[in-house]
Amino acid sequence: MALSDVDRLIHLLSRLPGLGPRSARRAVLHLLKRRETLLEPLARAMTEAAASVRTCSVCGNLDATDPCTICRDPARDHAAICVVEGVGDLWALERAGGFRGRYHVLGGTLSALDGVGPEDLHIPALLGRIASGAVTEVVLATNATVDGQTTAHYIAERLADSGVAVTRLAHGVPVGGELDYLDDGTLTAAFKARRPL
Amino acid sequence: MALSDVDRLIHLLSRLPGLGPRSARRAVLHLLKRRETLLEPLARAMTEAAASVRTCSVCGNLDATDPCTICRDPARDHAAICVVEGVGDLWALERAGGFRGRYHVLGGTLSALDGVGPEDLHIPALLGRIASGAVTEVVLATNATVDGQTTAHYIAERLADSGVAVTRLAHGVPVGGELDYLDDGTLTAAFKARRPL
Repeated sequence: MALSDVDRLIHLLSRLPGLGPRSARRAVLHLLKRRETLLEPLARAMTEAAASVRTCSVCGNLDATDPCTICRDPARDHAAICVVEGVGDLWALERAGGFRGRYHVLGGTLSALDGVGPEDLHIPALLGRIASGAVTEVVLATNATVDGQTTAHYIAERLADSGVAVTRLAHGVPVGGELDYLDDGTLTAAFKARRPL
Repeated sequence: MALSDVDRLIHLLSRLPGLGPRSARRAVLHLLKRRETLLEPLARAMTEAAASVRTCSVCGNLDATDPCTICRDPARDHAAICVVEGVGDLWALERAGGFRGRYHVLGGTLSALDGVGPEDLHIPALLGRIASGAVTEVVLATNATVDGQTTAHYIAERLADSGVAVTRLAHGVPVGGELDYLDDGTLTAAFKARRPL
């Protein structure tokens, strides 16, 4: 059947998060109408990314080199490690640009329900990095969800006797956020953590 | 800069309809985590589609062959042409499966505002196909928008003396639609076009 190239493309695109079968069809039409300016560059970019991008053996970041750009950067502070659940969180913190240390990607959270234990995450590797010295602070930047906080507490406990400072991201009112639209938990946390002006 | 492969991929994906920068980033992470099962097949499918898919010189459909599968199919009724605005409309009608004739893709609608005249659409080609004989019915399946209906009326006028039957899609209540949620225009059209049960 001659349409199969198009159908296969629609099928594969519809497996991306945020695209269903209908929007994948729309995207494919958009691509086919812009062969030279979008479809071909995108095909090339995907082929190149598939060939070049690998997981950093130190921190778990996705990058074209191993160790990744961040781990190799001599200007980054080797005394601080920021622990995140996923690569997306690492990218978000890098975009924000406030942290100049290095990262450690857990690859998920502990979850009794889903049977995810410490050995399923990159927690042993994290403990190994810390045991090798040099690290003086571990920032736990897991999500503010039940599983994320459980994971943070577990790691904090494992590090209790290690001598490194363990910190976590502050909870509070998002910058630009309106109190009226915030949930009670966030408001209570922000109130408890109030600081002198 | 080492992240550029990933950044370029995010940038290109964010140009697809329905994906912004944030969802494109999410999609790229999703792709990079599924290199063998999704990223590489998608890159191949795009490369193949870019190489194989072309515009049918008869009807304007996008397909791997020219003329397209529909135009080449001897089982399709050569006496009926269904006129649509875009390839997406053609695909939608094919999925519905109710029409066994052939198509003609206009590539847009007439629009005084945007300066789109009959010679900017594939209307001369349509008139040519009809003048070559064999066609007995032209179904105008342009969208039920002002521009779509204007275009349909223009084509109907051009075909007034051609001897072919000119029809258009029925307006009415969508199958499964609730009257309460329908706009007045559709309800009025459906009422006017009521039929004996």
